[in-house]
Amino acid sequence: MTPPAPILVINPNSNPAVTAGIDRAVAPFRLADGPRIECVTLEQGPFGIESAHDGAVVAPMLAALVTERRDAGAIVIACFSDPGLAACREVAQAPVIGIGEAGMTTAMARAGQVGVIALSEGSIRRHWARWRALGIASRVAGEVAVEASVADSSDPAVFPRLEAAGAALAAEGAEALVLGCAGMADRRGALEQALGLPVVDPVQAASALALSAILARA
Amino acid sequence: MTPPAPILVINPNSNPAVTAGIDRAVAPFRLADGPRIECVTLEQGPFGIESAHDGAVVAPMLAALVTERRDAGAIVIACFSDPGLAACREVAQAPVIGIGEAGMTTAMARAGQVGVIALSEGSIRRHWARWRALGIASRVAGEVAVEASVADSSDPAVFPRLEAAGAALAAEGAEALVLGCAGMADRRGALEQALGLPVVDPVQAASALALSAILARA
Amino acid sequence: MTPPAPILVINPNSNPAVTAGIDRAVAPFRLADGPRIECVTLEQGPFGIESAHDGAVVAPMLAALVTERRDAGAIVIACFSDPGLAACREVAQAPVIGIGEAGMTTAMARAGQVGVIALSEGSIRRHWARWRALGIASRVAGEVAVEASVADSSDPAVFPRLEAAGAALAAEGAEALVLGCAGMADRRGALEQALGLPVVDPVQAASALALSAILARA
Amino acid sequence: MTPPAPILVINPNSNPAVTAGIDRAVAPFRLADGPRIECVTLEQGPFGIESAHDGAVVAPMLAALVTERRDAGAIVIACFSDPGLAACREVAQAPVIGIGEAGMTTAMARAGQVGVIALSEGSIRRHWARWRALGIASRVAGEVAVEASVADSSDPAVFPRLEAAGAALAAEGAEALVLGCAGMADRRGALEQALGLPVVDPVQAASALALSAILARA
Amino acid sequence: MTPPAPILVINPNSNPAVTAGIDRAVAPFRLADGPRIECVTLEQGPFGIESAHDGAVVAPMLAALVTERRDAGAIVIACFSDPGLAACREVAQAPVIGIGEAGMTTAMARAGQVGVIALSEGSIRRHWARWRALGIASRVAGEVAVEASVADSSDPAVFPRLEAAGAALAAEGAEALVLGCAGMADRRGALEQALGLPVVDPVQAASALALSAILARA
Amino acid sequence: MTPPAPILVINPNSNPAVTAGIDRAVAPFRLADGPRIECVTLEQGPFGIESAHDGAVVAPMLAALVTERRDAGAIVIACFSDPGLAACREVAQAPVIGIGEAGMTTAMARAGQVGVIALSEGSIRRHWARWRALGIASRVAGEVAVEASVADSSDPAVFPRLEAAGAALAAEGAEALVLGCAGMADRRGALEQALGLPVVDPVQAASALALSAILARA
Repeated sequence: MTPPAPILVINPNSNPAVTAGIDRAVAPFRLADGPRIECVTLEQGPFGIESAHDGAVVAPMLAALVTERRDAGAIVIACFSDPGLAACREVAQAPVIGIGEAGMTTAMARAGQVGVIALSEGSIRRHWARWRALGIASRVAGEVAVEASVADSSDPAVFPRLEAAGAALAAEGAEALVLGCAGMADRRGALEQALGLPVVDPVQAASALALSAILARA
Repeated sequence: MTPPAPILVINPNSNPAVTAGIDRAVAPFRLADGPRIECVTLEQGPFGIESAHDGAVVAPMLAALVTERRDAGAIVIACFSDPGLAACREVAQAPVIGIGEAGMTTAMARAGQVGVIALSEGSIRRHWARWRALGIASRVAGEVAVEASVADSSDPAVFPRLEAAGAALAAEGAEALVLGCAGMADRRGALEQALGLPVVDPVQAASALALSAILARA
Repeated sequence: MTPPAPILVINPNSNPAVTAGIDRAVAPFRLADGPRIECVTLEQGPFGIESAHDGAVVAPMLAALVTERRDAGAIVIACFSDPGLAACREVAQAPVIGIGEAGMTTAMARAGQVGVIALSEGSIRRHWARWRALGIASRVAGEVAVEASVADSSDPAVFPRLEAAGAALAAEGAEALVLGCAGMADRRGALEQALGLPVVDPVQAASALALSAILARA
Repeated sequence: MTPPAPILVINPNSNPAVTAGIDRAVAPFRLADGPRIECVTLEQGPFGIESAHDGAVVAPMLAALVTERRDAGAIVIACFSDPGLAACREVAQAPVIGIGEAGMTTAMARAGQVGVIALSEGSIRRHWARWRALGIASRVAGEVAVEASVADSSDPAVFPRLEAAGAALAAEGAEALVLGCAGMADRRGALEQALGLPVVDPVQAASALALSAILARA
Repeated sequence: MTPPAPILVINPNSNPAVTAGIDRAVAPFRLADGPRIECVTLEQGPFGIESAHDGAVVAPMLAALVTERRDAGAIVIACFSDPGLAACREVAQAPVIGIGEAGMTTAMARAGQVGVIALSEGSIRRHWARWRALGIASRVAGEVAVEASVADSSDPAVFPRLEAAGAALAAEGAEALVLGCAGMADRRGALEQALGLPVVDPVQAASALALSAILARA
Repeated sequence: MTPPAPILVINPNSNPAVTAGIDRAVAPFRLADGPRIECVTLEQGPFGIESAHDGAVVAPMLAALVTERRDAGAIVIACFSDPGLAACREVAQAPVIGIGEAGMTTAMARAGQVGVIALSEGSIRRHWARWRALGIASRVAGEVAVEASVADSSDPAVFPRLEAAGAALAAEGAEALVLGCAGMADRRGALEQALGLPVVDPVQAASALALSAILARA
């Protein structure tokens, strides 16, 4: 029997530490009889996606990479602002999942109102614009920033800030939380335990949807 | 190492043929190193859930069953109208996923506008009420009924009706389809191939979300 | 001439003090030539409806009671979360009015934005979920809790809290107020006078709609 | 004991036949121990309200009349487009109810989706603009015109058109109907019986809300 | 060649100082080869439009003036609450632009979320009601009042309050600002420079739309 | 006195015939004492923008061109799907106007419900996604395609199709029309006259907003 086609998870920035965090996040979804999960860095991308301009720059690069990797059984764009998603879907034959969409919809299937923990204040406005565009803004209880870098986010010293953000969101009505950036999965479990609320890592959410699209085909 | 806690998939009607169809749907998600998936029939439930009253009748039964099954690692309510979901979530310690919510949110993570194929016209009004309640109605392109029973839905003679319904929904703007009832998974793949659109079976969607919730904990 | 069929007002919890408060609320709607108004307690219900689970438990009980009482000319479900409303409508021949829906829609016919005074913080999240489901959330200016029991709510010592809650809601834009629980009608008039805003008691609102449905038939 | 202050129902057009129809509609709400209900014609108004301009013309006249009639316990503006409602509320001490708002909110408290039967195609666009403004458009299943005058609407020969319009709306998902003009109450009961759906006359709905506002004060 | 028909800008209140401010606002749009721009005062109007009642009173006066001025190539109603707009459009042959609508839509074409600076708290509720009615409320980040009169608004001592209001709105997510009253244009440029955000004067926005409607016809 | 900085209108496809049509559209906005309007072709762009992928490809090219042209006083992106708009706004110092947004918001300031005439069926789905994203979908009455190329659209033989599309949209409730593609301005006036409805050319709408942003600064 031929093994299932692999899941390709693309980090659209060129920071290898983020790719490494993504790789750790997807590890639980690498199953004995499931598809291989390959995490790649968009080498030509900027070091971080921090603006609409950054997103516009990587979009055609992502579309080109997706066009090239016809071997993939499913593709994950691992940036919470889902750059180039529509364009990639047009050129891909396999399903293309964005972690922004997947994180939010997965949390919506776990509870009513969803809260989001952002790394930085600057991304909140863009996130809300996207949720309005997706028609899901009425399901978002709020978003709170912890003002930390991706690298910092797994630092134990930062954990109390994650916890405080989650508690603030719960007070605003959030019944499930989403980590609003790739690379924060290391703290998902501890945060879920500390807060008593479901906490969704968007890279895991997207990878699970990619996995299930491949398995359902079997 | 202790094996992961099982996924409990509950058919809230008492029709064992539906439970059997559910069991076939989840088969691809039974992985060598993943959790067991157990499909059960709500014996005291009505033979089908065809009204708000049927949903109200099964809701406390489902809550009681969920309360009892503390061993479950995740629970799926396998009826597209998601009866008793909020009540079950209150009494459960494990995640509780409804296939109605999971089917729709999974399709939303695969494409823009979503179309739904219903078995009967009678269910369409209740589905729209639920989508409005979930704040996702703006993402629904339409719903079309094929007027068939669950049993019929896997009959090859009914396939052209599924295909026609899917084509009609695509013409209304649907970019992904959801099968609007438990027990139609057998035709998912063929329909996807025939139409060239992602087709989501809601039992598979919910089971995948249950699976990923369990794996992410590992 | 046969007298008009009675209005049946059902308190879905088993607390007789609440039924007594409901009875006082509907007294002004008992008119010489109008229908009888009968207030009953759901004896098997929980002592209060404080969760989705409580609502799920009483829903089939309410449907059974409604099925039995074919003599009623109109039925009122006297709990602000409207448990079992859709199921009761399916089995009843007479109109079934929920006080949650009736309280809100009546206030909407009196002014633009509506504010709600809740007894406890815990109910606010469920109320918002329901308003979104009813498609009326854009008309709700806010909800403020006074943290009191139903019994307390008519205690003169609690009145300043009702007044403060109403003033806070007016500051958020509320142009009419709704008392967010059965059993608070005793303070409606005083609150209206103190605040200079229309104040709607939901039991009265529902009873008036039931009354008018019966009178219009004459 | 002083009798309760009267309900003043204002026909904002100068057609006395419409006022007579309004008078017949409110008759069942004249109760032995309830308030008097007085129906008046706005003599200076146009013969019908058929445009935004007609509405603008009568608005200050209505506000003047409302200012003058300090004796009224509640006021009903009996035109489905609710001309001058906000202005009248500012100058009145008593509650002011518009039949357009009252008809729609009353139907919303009786069922999920609401359908409206219009006399003429020309009014449909203005009605939708108003429902969007009121934030209730998501609850409207549709509106169908019968192309008849107010006078015609009680002609038995027109009844089949009312019935056909109602059936068409039910097919679009309407679970309750509203008669979209003052003066159609004569056919309410027959239509309700013929269609098996709640049918709301907006003049009756507004008068019942006015009545209940007065009774609640007692 | 005949010169283009003039733009008629109507101040619907009788305060000539406001008309003078409007006149200064439109000055940059008076071009050598463009239409004449004539600013007039509604002499019979109230001294300010500060309520729905004021709006209702001026609406038929505006419709009468618009009917009379058949020579106008385009008409601007220069009050942020757009009194009588629908009625004026029905009787006019030329385009009729309301500064409330034009200010908001122009800002929406300049950025995502829009913030509004009001002169007084009292107008904020009416503005939101209008934005909901226009279906654009989701684009409004917020509104903040500076509690100043029109005359005061160009006083240098008031400028810090305008600046603080703008900064508060930017903090709530506003990416462009609208001055929420006719007569504040004098400070538009300074505010734009101070805040680094686009600032739209609604009289200028409406006049530019009127100008472009006339030019496009050429 | 230095002349005002020019308006730069960018055709993001490489079809010079489209640029020529854009140039004719903006001609009426070239005023004796106003800014110069320069129309340029994005030479490296695809021959037409017909997909999300085409939009993604031109977005960084547009951002680069905008970055380079610091001399521009305002910039217009002349493609109805507004490619790269957010990115261009981040890198530009001058206002950046997209013709899709400007066409729709200008029509919204002229009337209630807006209808759109598309050149091809294929673009309709993308347009609706964008209107939902912009929060203005409730203002769109519908969109109808004439199945013609940009070049064809000014062919007299195609005019009856434009007229039929406009009439169909008016029947669906459209009170103003938008031409849903750059390059159709030649027929705007004739269509407006034939239909008796305002017809907005989006290139003219955007250019007028650019012009007014520059004039307001004066």
